[in-house]
Amino acid sequence: MAKVAHDPSSLIDGGETISVRPVPDSSLHVNGGDGPYSYTRNSYYQRLAANVVQKKINGAITMKLDVEKLSSGSNTIFVADLGCAVGPNTFDAMQDVLEFIKQKYKLQCPKSKMLEFLVFFNDQPSNDFNALFMSFPQERPYFAAGVPGSFHQRLFPESSIHLVHCSYALHWLSKLPQELLDKNSLAWNKGRVHYTNAPDEVVKAYASQFAKDMLDFLDARAKELVIGGMMIMIMPGMPDGMPYSQLAASLMYDFMASCFMDMANEGLISEDQVDSFNLPIYTPSAEEMTALVARNGHFSIESLELTNPASLVDGPVDIKAWVIHVRAAMEGMLTKHFTGDSIDEMFERLTQKLLKFSEQVESGYKERTQLLVVLIRK
Amino acid sequence: MAKVAHDPSSLIDGGETISVRPVPDSSLHVNGGDGPYSYTRNSYYQRLAANVVQKKINGAITMKLDVEKLSSGSNTIFVADLGCAVGPNTFDAMQDVLEFIKQKYKLQCPKSKMLEFLVFFNDQPSNDFNALFMSFPQERPYFAAGVPGSFHQRLFPESSIHLVHCSYALHWLSKLPQELLDKNSLAWNKGRVHYTNAPDEVVKAYASQFAKDMLDFLDARAKELVIGGMMIMIMPGMPDGMPYSQLAASLMYDFMASCFMDMANEGLISEDQVDSFNLPIYTPSAEEMTALVARNGHFSIESLELTNPASLVDGPVDIKAWVIHVRAAMEGMLTKHFTGDSIDEMFERLTQKLLKFSEQVESGYKERTQLLVVLIRK
Repeated sequence: MAKVAHDPSSLIDGGETISVRPVPDSSLHVNGGDGPYSYTRNSYYQRLAANVVQKKINGAITMKLDVEKLSSGSNTIFVADLGCAVGPNTFDAMQDVLEFIKQKYKLQCPKSKMLEFLVFFNDQPSNDFNALFMSFPQERPYFAAGVPGSFHQRLFPESSIHLVHCSYALHWLSKLPQELLDKNSLAWNKGRVHYTNAPDEVVKAYASQFAKDMLDFLDARAKELVIGGMMIMIMPGMPDGMPYSQLAASLMYDFMASCFMDMANEGLISEDQVDSFNLPIYTPSAEEMTALVARNGHFSIESLELTNPASLVDGPVDIKAWVIHVRAAMEGMLTKHFTGDSIDEMFERLTQKLLKFSEQVESGYKERTQLLVVLIRK
Repeated sequence: MAKVAHDPSSLIDGGETISVRPVPDSSLHVNGGDGPYSYTRNSYYQRLAANVVQKKINGAITMKLDVEKLSSGSNTIFVADLGCAVGPNTFDAMQDVLEFIKQKYKLQCPKSKMLEFLVFFNDQPSNDFNALFMSFPQERPYFAAGVPGSFHQRLFPESSIHLVHCSYALHWLSKLPQELLDKNSLAWNKGRVHYTNAPDEVVKAYASQFAKDMLDFLDARAKELVIGGMMIMIMPGMPDGMPYSQLAASLMYDFMASCFMDMANEGLISEDQVDSFNLPIYTPSAEEMTALVARNGHFSIESLELTNPASLVDGPVDIKAWVIHVRAAMEGMLTKHFTGDSIDEMFERLTQKLLKFSEQVESGYKERTQLLVVLIRK
């Protein structure tokens, strides 16, 4: 799926979370163009992961989406793909979803006129929409538009959208909790770049920002979706009660922090730079997501389950390819904070460290670390 | 209006035609970014010209657009701005149009819920949509999307659009007639860059391509507009029967050709380069447009009139500013054919020549050289 595309680590560690959806800060977007570190060239892992949920989405649309009713006013279905990045996976994902809708329509209305589709591809205004538009498939079974803007706010008119698809985008926080940078706070995240192995206060700060963002998102979508419309969300997730540090992905964040700290100790960067850098990424549990959907109150949960995003991957992890994927997704965020040289150095060290500890990477918790959520607008 | 914005010459010569709408060739688009030759910095003339038609558009919407009926299914109006370029005028134009629609709605349905708007900004895929999106007004009374694609083809689902706005874009041909380059054809356009002062065969080749493009455009829009929907087109136009060479704008094309030919004679470029370059721009008469709309058959003509785009401009032409405007609009097209140095040289010579012959510029035909066409989908 498009934004399964956004999780370069999903295939090897079970679904967490180095992803490409830009948070509102304009520097945070995937690498554009088609160079060696571009997202376009480095997102094929994600496409593989997509197939795992594809069948489940087909099932949800077949069972739960009343296409006949949704298309009764006209024969057009409006679909929004939120957090689309620059492709190419996003086009495959959309084509699959539209195919499922068409099949359902054929079942419901075998003699009716063909459906037409308009797909809105959304991402932050800083996303490379020129690259996205230039790479639209020449032959595509839908009309297409780009919509720049944060999906934590309204993007579309009231009751104008029939289906929302949002894959590997919602784990990006709209901003970092301020207290992570406050030396007087218990949530000061010194020497780390994430909440992996951090004090409870740090985890809580992240969780609270995620909850706020998710409620903003649900609120906006509740206004935009027609009654009976469907929302499909795919994102990193984890079993209730499991400490984050047990996930294989947590090793990557720990190693990234330790590479940066080594560089600080060698005087290549300052310790302050490391202390003040944090990844705006959060992985909720199924329980957390269920509670947030209930708190919004406008959606019924048709499906909310942990799936295994790694199921299509056999054999050991290709560490080098993994790091290039991570780089394609995160470089924009890093260059805002560190120099290009520092980033080159860190990724080089990260690769070496992951190669050295590849057994640990392989032994991390990998299963059931991807949330698939299907909601219907009540 | 947005794409009155696209005619840098409109204020000084009466509406013809050095405009920025890219034809399908990916090199033909206005200068992006915000550098000294960017379209963004060099399109304020066009905004002034817009005000001339603004009142007429308000009148057409008030008299002829049944907003109550169009918004009966939902309270959302879908508007398409075709050939939007990169702004900034396009945003002002849209804001005006939406304001007129709101006023009409208030008249018809004083007690109803506020309308919501979704505006689709369309241009060629090679247009700088990143620049367009980054310059969207922070506070805008509409939701916005970008739609890459040629407006000579379908862009939207059937019956999905309530109002189409297309300003200073339709005079751009989708391609140049092949025979202009054929040495064995009577339409071979040797030593010229346009049909100004050319043999009849050249004029006919241009006119025939324009007719084909316009019919393709009308055909696509007829499918996309709802019954009762409105289409507003603003473009260069000329009085029936007037030779094109009598327009002030024609001087510019003649001078451009002669500057290039001088450069060829001096060995700076080849004569072949000049012979094989032609501007894909055509200015129809009111009679031609009327016939094409009739041939399509799906629209009633509510208004089709020649207006004076220069009415707001007092005093003599600022030649240097004019040439910079022309350059912002045409550079993409020229750089495909000539080197950057040649283009610098040509524009320098063009400026000098226009300064020398400024009396001729002033005395060209200027009035009633802008077509305002308002159609209703039958």
